[in-house]
Amino acid sequence: MNVTGQNLRIPGPTPCPPQVLEATARAMINHRGPEFRDLILPITEKMKQVFMTRNRLYILTASGTGALEAGVVNTLSPGDKVLAVTVGNFGDRFADMAQAHGADVTRLEFEWGTAADPGVVARALGEHRDLKAVLVTHNETSTGVTNDLESIVRVVREGSDALLLVDAISSLGCVPLPVDEWDCDVVCTASQKGLMVPPGLSFVSLNERAWQAREKARMPRYYFDLPAAQRYLERAQTPWTPNVPLFYGLDVALDMMLEEGMDAVFRRHARLGDLTRRSVADLGLELLAEEAHASNTVTAVKVPEGVDGGRLSELLRTEHSVVVAGGQGKLSGKIFRVGHMGWVSEEDIREAVRAIETALPQVGFKPPRDSRAGREKVS
Amino acid sequence: MNVTGQNLRIPGPTPCPPQVLEATARAMINHRGPEFRDLILPITEKMKQVFMTRNRLYILTASGTGALEAGVVNTLSPGDKVLAVTVGNFGDRFADMAQAHGADVTRLEFEWGTAADPGVVARALGEHRDLKAVLVTHNETSTGVTNDLESIVRVVREGSDALLLVDAISSLGCVPLPVDEWDCDVVCTASQKGLMVPPGLSFVSLNERAWQAREKARMPRYYFDLPAAQRYLERAQTPWTPNVPLFYGLDVALDMMLEEGMDAVFRRHARLGDLTRRSVADLGLELLAEEAHASNTVTAVKVPEGVDGGRLSELLRTEHSVVVAGGQGKLSGKIFRVGHMGWVSEEDIREAVRAIETALPQVGFKPPRDSRAGREKVS
Repeated sequence: MNVTGQNLRIPGPTPCPPQVLEATARAMINHRGPEFRDLILPITEKMKQVFMTRNRLYILTASGTGALEAGVVNTLSPGDKVLAVTVGNFGDRFADMAQAHGADVTRLEFEWGTAADPGVVARALGEHRDLKAVLVTHNETSTGVTNDLESIVRVVREGSDALLLVDAISSLGCVPLPVDEWDCDVVCTASQKGLMVPPGLSFVSLNERAWQAREKARMPRYYFDLPAAQRYLERAQTPWTPNVPLFYGLDVALDMMLEEGMDAVFRRHARLGDLTRRSVADLGLELLAEEAHASNTVTAVKVPEGVDGGRLSELLRTEHSVVVAGGQGKLSGKIFRVGHMGWVSEEDIREAVRAIETALPQVGFKPPRDSRAGREKVS
Repeated sequence: MNVTGQNLRIPGPTPCPPQVLEATARAMINHRGPEFRDLILPITEKMKQVFMTRNRLYILTASGTGALEAGVVNTLSPGDKVLAVTVGNFGDRFADMAQAHGADVTRLEFEWGTAADPGVVARALGEHRDLKAVLVTHNETSTGVTNDLESIVRVVREGSDALLLVDAISSLGCVPLPVDEWDCDVVCTASQKGLMVPPGLSFVSLNERAWQAREKARMPRYYFDLPAAQRYLERAQTPWTPNVPLFYGLDVALDMMLEEGMDAVFRRHARLGDLTRRSVADLGLELLAEEAHASNTVTAVKVPEGVDGGRLSELLRTEHSVVVAGGQGKLSGKIFRVGHMGWVSEEDIREAVRAIETALPQVGFKPPRDSRAGREKVS
């Protein structure tokens, strides 16, 4: 339960711990003085622990899409051949962005609700030579699918010299993503998901290969120029005025995460993902994602035949203070999504499921006979 | 006096009223739900009152440089001829940015500390035909100079068909800038100056001419694509996850400004600018900006001969909790700057001046005989 009284079960912004919110309200400081140095340096180091990386890591005052743009424009040139592996709306967005910046993008699309098949990716790499980059979404927020990133990195390494750019916005800090161990070249995430901080900051890590690529990268860039970020980080600053309040909040949130321990954080997300899927299935609802690749940060639930998904969400919000997200793109109206990432507990999930259970009959849902909803209440 | 105990006298981030900071700490909401609609729509309307415009206005999750980039990439194409009028570091930055995005930039530079001469601008317009845009900084934060924007707009209108893009980051909401009356095509500002909100949001307004220009503008853009911002604003949303906390804070800050009345806000800034300049001059210090164009939001003070500007700033911060800004670019070490914009009172300025007066002799400053500092304390 959020402090607003809302159980905010969208896949970001996620609820923030009170101590994080409290920290964000601290007074302003000189962003070019020692007070900011004492924020940005330890935060960057702690963030590298969450990324499980020793790579370069930059903090940008922008939402996640900004970090993705930074990843693209700092490593690529107009005309560069790019393979965009997409399993949903955010994969498409990543592809659109590279294209908007002049990349020659080939889309490798998988059915929404399924994961990218590494074998199919391998074949595509064989067919498309001279690829400069492969774009992939680690966790597809629009469908509740987690791609097998480890295998995808392997086939990319084996089948090409391409850089791998990873959208880890709704995965990093929630499910394992050992950036160095898996050898991901560019990894992007944002503050408002697993990091338990409000939206407005995003992050990009680059390994040495990606960093070298910047020298040849000719996509125009200014606000998202990472060499500028590097020059300023050497002075413990950012090139442009940073979002100071979110640095305050992030400092507290990172301490919480590292104190809980990343393994414990990952186990908690796995447990809550599992609980969500089981509970929702018990209500007689169908999940969009195939179980083998179901996300532990967000669950996409099919809106049952005859039910108005919009009315269900509205009822949940107004009558139960449970806020779920709708479907995006071609899934608009066809699914609703329950977020379970960041600062979330078992009780948050149980409460949300109880609300869904109560609301469903009010929007005309009749559960199939063998579902638990027909038999007993979810405790 | 800031709630940290620091008297933060840098030209942004500026101190925020406690009620603004408190608002920023509210719990997260669904940025695609009715809760956010009830923020973005009234805030956009109130912001238009502060801009004194009926133009389109978009709120971006980025610092001010991001809004400038949005202004450039949405109205221009690579190769477009641009005249960049620059009187300091931020004018140079605006020029650099347009150039980074492929514009053919001619720089019209004025000596740092002086304002742009509209007559010289007019002549430059005569010499450079086919200009697509003129870039100008309303208030140059690095030198404490306010350009005569009204006259500059007039000469641009008379002498060209160019769009006028205005960096109003450290002027808007502090000194008069009637966007519609002066007919400014693109105006950009940011949250952390006159608007009394932490950094992380920025704003761009476009009149119909500027909006039409987007159709031919071919600079690549994605995160800063304003047609996307327009499409989402029609649904009371932003294309990418917005910085929700700063919307909360901005809502409160705008109410405060509009309640005080924009004319009263402008008069307060004029009074405090005047007080700062007089008080500093009374200490025997020399101002960088010529009086006729001295800024009412930030005062640049020359570091006296033989004084180490860095040591002075350090002493002010550590001994007096007064934080001033150093010089930028070629003025590094040669000036210090005192901000007086946003949430600032006469007492804040007097306190800062008293601290400077106390610190100066400790860094070896001997005031000239006729200065007030030689005679009596500033009360």
